[in-house]
Amino acid sequence: MARYKAILIYEGTGFQGSQRQAGLRTVQGELEAALQRLGWTGRSVFLAGRTDRGVHAEGQVAAFDLDWRHDLGKLQKALNAELPPDLAVRELVTAPDAFHPRFDARSREYAYRLFSDPLRQPLRERFAWRVWPEPDGRILAEVARLLPGTHDFRAFGSAPSPQGSTQRTVTQAQWHGLPGREWRFDIHADAFLYRMVRRLVHVQVSAAQGRVSPHEVGLALNHGTNLPAGIAPAHGLTLVGVRYGSN
Amino acid sequence: MARYKAILIYEGTGFQGSQRQAGLRTVQGELEAALQRLGWTGRSVFLAGRTDRGVHAEGQVAAFDLDWRHDLGKLQKALNAELPPDLAVRELVTAPDAFHPRFDARSREYAYRLFSDPLRQPLRERFAWRVWPEPDGRILAEVARLLPGTHDFRAFGSAPSPQGSTQRTVTQAQWHGLPGREWRFDIHADAFLYRMVRRLVHVQVSAAQGRVSPHEVGLALNHGTNLPAGIAPAHGLTLVGVRYGSN
Repeated sequence: MARYKAILIYEGTGFQGSQRQAGLRTVQGELEAALQRLGWTGRSVFLAGRTDRGVHAEGQVAAFDLDWRHDLGKLQKALNAELPPDLAVRELVTAPDAFHPRFDARSREYAYRLFSDPLRQPLRERFAWRVWPEPDGRILAEVARLLPGTHDFRAFGSAPSPQGSTQRTVTQAQWHGLPGREWRFDIHADAFLYRMVRRLVHVQVSAAQGRVSPHEVGLALNHGTNLPAGIAPAHGLTLVGVRYGSN
Repeated sequence: MARYKAILIYEGTGFQGSQRQAGLRTVQGELEAALQRLGWTGRSVFLAGRTDRGVHAEGQVAAFDLDWRHDLGKLQKALNAELPPDLAVRELVTAPDAFHPRFDARSREYAYRLFSDPLRQPLRERFAWRVWPEPDGRILAEVARLLPGTHDFRAFGSAPSPQGSTQRTVTQAQWHGLPGREWRFDIHADAFLYRMVRRLVHVQVSAAQGRVSPHEVGLALNHGTNLPAGIAPAHGLTLVGVRYGSN
């Protein structure tokens, strides 16, 4: 029996989120079903981060224990053959017995994509949020510069446990302009509150469309004052990766 | 009553092709249902090209007659509000009464995307075909150079009508290398046989993986000799546009 660490890619559209829920198609549920067909008898796989319904991942991390007599490459191949087309194991390594993808994580990285267009664009909207009017890139950059550091993000999400801290440390937050009036927001933090990235994106776009002032965003970050409600849709968000002490 | 010309974008994944079929979700069926909710009482809209199940479009052309008393912009907005998320009207103009998007078309343009990877990549595979081993780009280019001109493409597809000609004129055919071991094949022709682009892509990839020789492809083009069976999957293909005398 050994513990394995798997890097997962998935297209979130067809999943009701990452965590197992009875009767619903989830990432955890599909991974456990595939493992069971390879002889896994565990109770639960562990995932690094909870992603909501519709959120994509190119670097979700899972861990599980398995008794496997062949080499790692064969296990990865067998798992990928059992998994559905919208979920794949991108990398597979053995891990220390005590490795836990959530508790051991040092930081997480998310990306949010959006583009600006007055008309619907079905070929782009699976992986990006369409916004209009066009956000002002200088204001996006100005607001993003407020984010790095340790803040109480209670205006931007809720803690995983009812009495949990809403303090988080953002180590990087940046917008990148791309061709086709597209923008990508990259954010790294030690951990995130529920819905925090999507709330942050919504607030920044509101500022860049002139509906909230950067000053108000600063007040919310420093004093926890409220901001207008609103959340960017799940389909623009991707969990890019999770970092551990060793990488 | 006026005739309208609409440029349609759709993500093909959720459609059983473009043409109306009883009981199936198709592009034509969804467009007609949306138009009916705006008072359209016609029998059928016309489409420029038939796309198979799973094929995408960023420039499909439709025509229909409608009695509409407001301006064009409002009609486009109303239509887009009635259409499902995976189908949109990108442009809408009035057209001469005799305009027919298929019979009047001078040429069509398709793009096929693929990438090379030994492992599945769910976030890329909705719009591109994953191939492995990596195709040799010089052979892709070499085979593509054989395609322009007027040929009997009977080894690469079938005519829309049983006794129809299988001769077509390709005006452009080119592979473009993109970041991430991705390739895009652009092809323009007066018209295409059924499945012709997907067959051409499959044959070229087979050559670039060493399974068919460019010489054999040349023979098939010039003498109609057979080639190994095989067709590239629908999800890599996009109908980019249709050209008319006036544009």
